[in-house]
Amino acid sequence: MAVGVHRVVIVGSGFAGLFAARRLEGAPCEVTVVDRRTYHLFQPLLYQVATGILSEGDVAPPTREVLRRQPNARVVLGEVVDVDAAARVVTARSPVGETALGYDSLIVAAGSAPSYFGHDEFAVHAPGLKSLDDALEVRGRIFGAFEMAESEPDPERRAAWLTFALVGAGPTGVELAGQIAELSRQSLRGRYRAIDPATARIVLLDGAPRILPAFDERLSARAADRLRELGVEIEPSAMVVGVDADGIDVQGSDGARRRLVTRTKVWSAGVQASPLGALLARRAGAALGRHGQVEVEPDCTLPGHPEIFVVGDLMSLDGLPGLAEVAMQSGLHAASEIDRRLGGDPRPRRFQYRDLGSLAAISRGYAIGQRGRVQVWGRPGWVIWLTVHLVFLTGFKSRVAALFHWVFSLFGRARYEQSTTLRQVTARTASPSRPG
Amino acid sequence: MAVGVHRVVIVGSGFAGLFAARRLEGAPCEVTVVDRRTYHLFQPLLYQVATGILSEGDVAPPTREVLRRQPNARVVLGEVVDVDAAARVVTARSPVGETALGYDSLIVAAGSAPSYFGHDEFAVHAPGLKSLDDALEVRGRIFGAFEMAESEPDPERRAAWLTFALVGAGPTGVELAGQIAELSRQSLRGRYRAIDPATARIVLLDGAPRILPAFDERLSARAADRLRELGVEIEPSAMVVGVDADGIDVQGSDGARRRLVTRTKVWSAGVQASPLGALLARRAGAALGRHGQVEVEPDCTLPGHPEIFVVGDLMSLDGLPGLAEVAMQSGLHAASEIDRRLGGDPRPRRFQYRDLGSLAAISRGYAIGQRGRVQVWGRPGWVIWLTVHLVFLTGFKSRVAALFHWVFSLFGRARYEQSTTLRQVTARTASPSRPG
Repeated sequence: MAVGVHRVVIVGSGFAGLFAARRLEGAPCEVTVVDRRTYHLFQPLLYQVATGILSEGDVAPPTREVLRRQPNARVVLGEVVDVDAAARVVTARSPVGETALGYDSLIVAAGSAPSYFGHDEFAVHAPGLKSLDDALEVRGRIFGAFEMAESEPDPERRAAWLTFALVGAGPTGVELAGQIAELSRQSLRGRYRAIDPATARIVLLDGAPRILPAFDERLSARAADRLRELGVEIEPSAMVVGVDADGIDVQGSDGARRRLVTRTKVWSAGVQASPLGALLARRAGAALGRHGQVEVEPDCTLPGHPEIFVVGDLMSLDGLPGLAEVAMQSGLHAASEIDRRLGGDPRPRRFQYRDLGSLAAISRGYAIGQRGRVQVWGRPGWVIWLTVHLVFLTGFKSRVAALFHWVFSLFGRARYEQSTTLRQVTARTASPSRPG
Repeated sequence: MAVGVHRVVIVGSGFAGLFAARRLEGAPCEVTVVDRRTYHLFQPLLYQVATGILSEGDVAPPTREVLRRQPNARVVLGEVVDVDAAARVVTARSPVGETALGYDSLIVAAGSAPSYFGHDEFAVHAPGLKSLDDALEVRGRIFGAFEMAESEPDPERRAAWLTFALVGAGPTGVELAGQIAELSRQSLRGRYRAIDPATARIVLLDGAPRILPAFDERLSARAADRLRELGVEIEPSAMVVGVDADGIDVQGSDGARRRLVTRTKVWSAGVQASPLGALLARRAGAALGRHGQVEVEPDCTLPGHPEIFVVGDLMSLDGLPGLAEVAMQSGLHAASEIDRRLGGDPRPRRFQYRDLGSLAAISRGYAIGQRGRVQVWGRPGWVIWLTVHLVFLTGFKSRVAALFHWVFSLFGRARYEQSTTLRQVTARTASPSRPG
């Protein structure tokens, strides 16, 4: 890199990191994006990878491809193992060794991973859904469960294979519940001989009194109605206090405990920040929030380090939720701040989050959405949901064939991605997502 | 299953097993297909999964889906651990336990795996390309190698990451060589900053004096010319005598040894039969050929066991090669024999292989093919290759969207399936295919 050119290092190629990198196109700086993955992950559709509609490639465009025509950006595959805030050097590790990446500005957008609230031993039995690996693990378990049910002669054990527990009734849990319902009632119809996949129980649990608490109460109720129509059992105010291979232990709001016998569990009940937050605490004096997020100034910088921005899920600011939209906007904000400083204006600006609204797909043809006081649901909601996701998926790169494939899959009942081996079914190894 | 109905058990859901199962539709028997995988694998296109063009789902339709509307067929996910030829029982193992599958007729179509000719330690460094797992492993290594080259400052070590060795110049090795050449010269163009991917060396080695020895000498020479145009180095008469993480040791026809420094190796130099062959030897007195295949009578039955058929890659008969076409026809033959016996005609018929011709794709727009004395090459060959593969892919089930996706990918330069994590690059664990 040329001496004297302002060096921006961005840790993470998620929404926050990638939007920051793109925003710096044409700016007088050199941008280096470092990540453990070669791809940007379109997380909002990960549940469709887990349920066989999309392939990995459909939701994971290569970061290099996205940044191909941005001459001032480069990508480094590596795991960030140190941030020296005094020397302004990030160290990334890969099989070729450690790479020192000096920076003038640093944007840390390392994201989050599932949180088991101190019960990391749950992860083996109830994987989260934050990474491609997670999605493939969950996919293997869902399709594998129907296979095992088909082979299992004992009715009780068979019922355990045909029971699916979704822990956490945010968008991921709700969308997964809807997908597994459609899968069992429609996609798999007629495929088995010993079982009727439509008899599968799909149980959606949450400690909160209602599903999708980020939405208005009426929309949440509509979504619950639609899920019940699909055959999903909703258990609000249910705390999961134990998870093992054969089931989960649930405590109701009255304190009474009971057990749900189920082989297949997916955990989306909470998130914790990337370990890079703790690294910033040790190496740059960052203060951490309750879930390990980094407390930042109103302009998204680290207190005492105006050259370090923390954005996206890793950022703790004004109680903003860990949404893709917050990640994109905070990434853009950090890049704008850097760009403006390079233009000679050093005054910090507050990050102002503009709520553009929320959407959640419940099933094919049914989504809910709200923006301010405007609410949509049902088919109109789904059309909006589809449009927004199409625009985003095409935004990075024209991928007409993949889109065609996807739209076709969504309208039809085919699920192309179901390949499962016995090894995948039997693998009961921990695979918690590793952030950043 | 109803008492008295003739029970056919088919081990394996590859070309031989699936064609046998489909042939028995409507026949007065109950068909059980048992496999470790839930899917039929369209092996001839596996190299496109390994090079990012196709997703797993594109080449792996669920076996249950293929047999969905065949009421006399069922599918069992399990690993065959025993064949009791006296009691006529196959034992399959899965997480739910062992399942005993009694049979009146048995078709063993368990396929083959890569052979390292007694050097199984090579497998860690040079995976084969026989299973979906293999394809994903190879894909991660190919794309990961460019990543590591980008990060590697040392020129020699960088060159090792940018050298790809394909051991074995049959269709798989040739098609992979062509794909990696196109990938490095076209798909990845402009994506890296420190390296030019077009400088990658692609070396195709074989112990034989020419590539694609199953083809006529002139076609083989044309294919070699086309590969050289693409930048592939062809090393005939080269025996690979050593493989380690950093390279391979090659012995020429003059006996002289030399070393090729390369991080990425793929092995398609030979195959060995499924271990089910050895099981049949122990339990049913089968005689095994040089590569572990089972010697069969001219009607594909095991000597002394007219109720046991061995077909596909696992079969040793008249020196027939391990081709998809042989697998399909021998599977059909076994099913026809059973069907005819059920119709009251017990006389065995010889399996007559009809050579319908061979095709191999060298690059986008160039394939070679021969049928009897007719030879095609170049674009006409490619059109035939494309047509044949489209017909096969659609044959099992109408998958219009996937086909569109695929054709689009073939004509364009996009490779959707490139997602790689650092973990995949660093994983250097053995992953030899396990047949059957």
